[in-house]
Amino acid sequence: MPRYRLLIEYNGGPFQGWQRLPGLPTVQGTLEEAATKLDDGAPVEVFGAGRTDSGVHATGQVAHMDLQIDRGHKVADAMNFHLRPHPIAILKAEEVDDEFSARFSATERHYRFIIVNRRADLTLERGLAWRVPSALDADKMHEAAQHLVGTHDFTTFRDTDCQANSPLRTLNAISVSRYGDRVELTCRAQSFLHRQVRSMVGSLVEVGRGRRPVQWIKQILEAADRTKCGPISPPDGLYLEKVDYE
Amino acid sequence: MPRYRLLIEYNGGPFQGWQRLPGLPTVQGTLEEAATKLDDGAPVEVFGAGRTDSGVHATGQVAHMDLQIDRGHKVADAMNFHLRPHPIAILKAEEVDDEFSARFSATERHYRFIIVNRRADLTLERGLAWRVPSALDADKMHEAAQHLVGTHDFTTFRDTDCQANSPLRTLNAISVSRYGDRVELTCRAQSFLHRQVRSMVGSLVEVGRGRRPVQWIKQILEAADRTKCGPISPPDGLYLEKVDYE
Repeated sequence: MPRYRLLIEYNGGPFQGWQRLPGLPTVQGTLEEAATKLDDGAPVEVFGAGRTDSGVHATGQVAHMDLQIDRGHKVADAMNFHLRPHPIAILKAEEVDDEFSARFSATERHYRFIIVNRRADLTLERGLAWRVPSALDADKMHEAAQHLVGTHDFTTFRDTDCQANSPLRTLNAISVSRYGDRVELTCRAQSFLHRQVRSMVGSLVEVGRGRRPVQWIKQILEAADRTKCGPISPPDGLYLEKVDYE
Repeated sequence: MPRYRLLIEYNGGPFQGWQRLPGLPTVQGTLEEAATKLDDGAPVEVFGAGRTDSGVHATGQVAHMDLQIDRGHKVADAMNFHLRPHPIAILKAEEVDDEFSARFSATERHYRFIIVNRRADLTLERGLAWRVPSALDADKMHEAAQHLVGTHDFTTFRDTDCQANSPLRTLNAISVSRYGDRVELTCRAQSFLHRQVRSMVGSLVEVGRGRRPVQWIKQILEAADRTKCGPISPPDGLYLEKVDYE
C-alpha cells in the first residue's frame, strides 16, 4: 500500500476551501474523487498540509495519500486526467515512507498575498489578487509587520471559529514589498491560525493607507482581542506557496 | 472636442478580438459603448494601436478617442465605471494633441508570449498562457529567433487573410528566456503582420521541442511561403505589453 506525496496547484475560486464538505465542491473532496477513480474505486483519503479557506489558492500545497494499487511514476498524470476539468493540478507525485504526513511532518508553511494597488478594476488577475484603490505605503506596512515576528498570542488575528487549541504561534518571517503597482506580502511559520494571514493583511493595509500608525499593529497584537483586528482581507490574493519538510 | 489617449489592459478571452464586429463582443466595440455612455450618447470611435486577435490579451494597449464633452481628469474612472463588468480596464487617460494617433504615431509595439512548460494542465493561468508539455530548450529557441531580427519578407509568418499591403516588416528584437517552468518570448517592431507573433512562436516551439534544427527558422523565413510555417500557437499566451511613441 504505497504512500504518495503530492505537490499541488489550484485555483481556489470555485471551491469551498480545502476541507471535504459533503455535497459541496472542495479541493480535498475533488482530489479524493480523482484518487478513488485511480485506485479502482477504493475510497482514498487525501491529507493536506494547509487547510486553505474558500477562495484561497495554492501554488505549492502538499498532500499525502495511500493507494491500494502501486501506480509507480504514473500517479501525477493519472490524477491530472481524473481531475479534469477542475482547476487543480498535481505538479509532482512521489512515493514516500509510511511515516510521512503532509500535515504533521511540515516544518514551515509559506504564504504569499498579492495586492494590486490601483483604481481600475482587475481584468487578467480577477479573482487572483486583491485590488486596493487607495495609495499604500508598502514600507510602512513592512515596518508594522515586523511587530508580528516571533512567538505571540495571535488572538487578535484569529477567526472566532478557529479550532486550534492555543492562540500561540511563532511567525518566523513576514515581508512586504512593492513592485510597480503590486504590493506583495510573504510570510512563513510552522503553522497558522484560521484566517491569520488574511487578518494580518487586512490590518496592515489599514497602516499602508495611512488610517493607522505603524505602532497600532503592536497595540492590537498585545491587546489579544479579536474585536481590535482591522477588516479581514478577501481570499483572492492569498496563495499557499510552499511547505517545507525536514 | 478633446482627444484622449488611453492606456488599456484587458483579458482577451471573452472577446472576438479588438476590432469592432456588429453583434459580437469585441474590445473596441465594448470601449466604444462605454465611451458613448460617458459622452451622453454621442457615438464615439476608439482607435487602437494594435488590432489584437480573438483571445489575445493586453497589459499596455494604447488607444485614442475624441469626446464632445470635456471630462478632464475623470475620464479613466468614468470609463471604468461604464466598462463593468467587462474585463477591460483603463489604467490611464490623458488629454493629448489632436495630431496624436494611437495607431499611426506608434513607433514600436512590444509583445510578450507566455508558455508554461509542464505536463499538468493550467489552473491559475488557464486562458492566460500556453501550456506545452514537451520539454523545451529555451536557449535553442532564442538562438533560432535571432534569424528573424531585421527587415525581411515575413510571408511565412503571416496569416493568409492578412490585409497589409506588404509582407516586409522590421523585427527590432526578439528574445526567449526560461524562468523555472515558464518560457517567455518578447519581441518588438514598429508593426507586425496578422498573426505574425503566434506564427513565430509556434515555429520556435518546434525548434524548442527538438523536432526541427535551429537553422530551420532561417530556411522557412527565406522560403517566404506560408505553408512552411510551423503550427500557429494558441492566442492564450499572447499579450500586447507596450506601445511606444516619439
